[in-house]
Amino acid sequence: MTDRFAAFRALHHGDRPLLLPNAWDHASAAALAARGHPAIGTTSLGVAAAAGLPDGEAATRAETLHLARRLRGLPALLTVDVEAGFSDEPAEVAALAAELAGLGVVGINIEDGRPDGSLAPPALTAAAVAAVKDTTPEIFVNARTDAWWLGVADPLGQALERARLYRAAGADGIFAPGVSDSDTIGVLVAGLDAPLNVLHRPGGPTVAELGRLGVARISTGSLLFRAALGAALATADALRAADPAPGAAYPEPPSYVEVQRLSAPPGAG
Amino acid sequence: MTDRFAAFRALHHGDRPLLLPNAWDHASAAALAARGHPAIGTTSLGVAAAAGLPDGEAATRAETLHLARRLRGLPALLTVDVEAGFSDEPAEVAALAAELAGLGVVGINIEDGRPDGSLAPPALTAAAVAAVKDTTPEIFVNARTDAWWLGVADPLGQALERARLYRAAGADGIFAPGVSDSDTIGVLVAGLDAPLNVLHRPGGPTVAELGRLGVARISTGSLLFRAALGAALATADALRAADPAPGAAYPEPPSYVEVQRLSAPPGAG
Repeated sequence: MTDRFAAFRALHHGDRPLLLPNAWDHASAAALAARGHPAIGTTSLGVAAAAGLPDGEAATRAETLHLARRLRGLPALLTVDVEAGFSDEPAEVAALAAELAGLGVVGINIEDGRPDGSLAPPALTAAAVAAVKDTTPEIFVNARTDAWWLGVADPLGQALERARLYRAAGADGIFAPGVSDSDTIGVLVAGLDAPLNVLHRPGGPTVAELGRLGVARISTGSLLFRAALGAALATADALRAADPAPGAAYPEPPSYVEVQRLSAPPGAG
Repeated sequence: MTDRFAAFRALHHGDRPLLLPNAWDHASAAALAARGHPAIGTTSLGVAAAAGLPDGEAATRAETLHLARRLRGLPALLTVDVEAGFSDEPAEVAALAAELAGLGVVGINIEDGRPDGSLAPPALTAAAVAAVKDTTPEIFVNARTDAWWLGVADPLGQALERARLYRAAGADGIFAPGVSDSDTIGVLVAGLDAPLNVLHRPGGPTVAELGRLGVARISTGSLLFRAALGAALATADALRAADPAPGAAYPEPPSYVEVQRLSAPPGAG
């Protein structure tokens, strides 16, 4: 097990940033693993929407654990989005992280955004991080600040202050979704002593450009889930409109046999 | 409840064939319902692959029921693919159908294909159909013959014989996936006294063309699920290759807010 944790940590210090695609079910995770991605994250939006539950409201603890259980044995390292830990009790967040680590999960994301659109008190998020690291020191804790997403005043100042607190609590990396411009990314990289994770933004900097800025990890967040849903709807729309089959606009989808193969009994993993 | 069953039945007798898109989770079903589809099916491949289980091997009874429970309250009629009923015992298949009807499901598909690539004895499938209709007469039973898919000798003869047996057992409609040419479809329509369901095939006849041939219902099968998975993989591939964001090849995916809205508490349904 320790080797898996070390391997995941090392992916944050390679020559290129870690491109971390986010899955939401067994098929998406298995297919991304088969595509050669060494590590896969989960998307809390995707997990929530697949179950018909809201994202970011601590409603999907059971689904998140269930998914981690399902993904055991896939040939990829797994890091799991646990929103804010599904609890304000640090001990409960730590218990969740320990359970996930027991399932082979090598990392978690813990966020400070709240369903009401506010940022949690930084000490609360820091306490959750500290409890997790006390209990499961080997798990990679990626502390996410939603300063940009929630549109708070002075997001950069907030993010730097929070990142220092989260780091002091034991966080292994800092995730700042919503940061879009190179200058801000540069300030964050210079101001942090930990790997910086940003969210890929369509039309934004490429993986290579983000790598040159010093970004260590690039997540796709809910993008793959939303692209998938969009393609299903576009295909259904085209059929209903009696358009020609949308072969031109889409790559050939996986065949029935290829999808079935994704559910083959996992190897030693 | 009765009104829902009658409404679904009536969709097989409209001016145009019923285009039935197949969903695999809450998000896909809710999004298709929001797109105005009056009825939605499930895809057993999608349900199985999402859970990391094989399709067509009676492994997904629990997941199938779980999904039906999740989709209660969506503003669309739901028909569920139950493979071969997940059992060779007609009483067990009937119990499953009754449970689904209790969840608001208006129809089921029962297939005669076997995991070993053979067709079940027609009397076995007919007995399952009869047991379902004895117990839950209002549910629309779409009896599927896999004569074409499994490549048996004389698929048309087999299909016509089986369709007559399934109809005699009480089936409300006949599903013949894998039928591709207009002549065969014409013979089936002429030879059946029940609505014919075929599978949409990319590059094959359009919905309008199938309607002119007398087809009553057109399913997408696993196509939407596979298109979704393919789009997720293509998006991840493009990011890894540092290609420009795949905006040109794909329609704009649903936004985060649009996806969250799909999980809003259902109305009276």
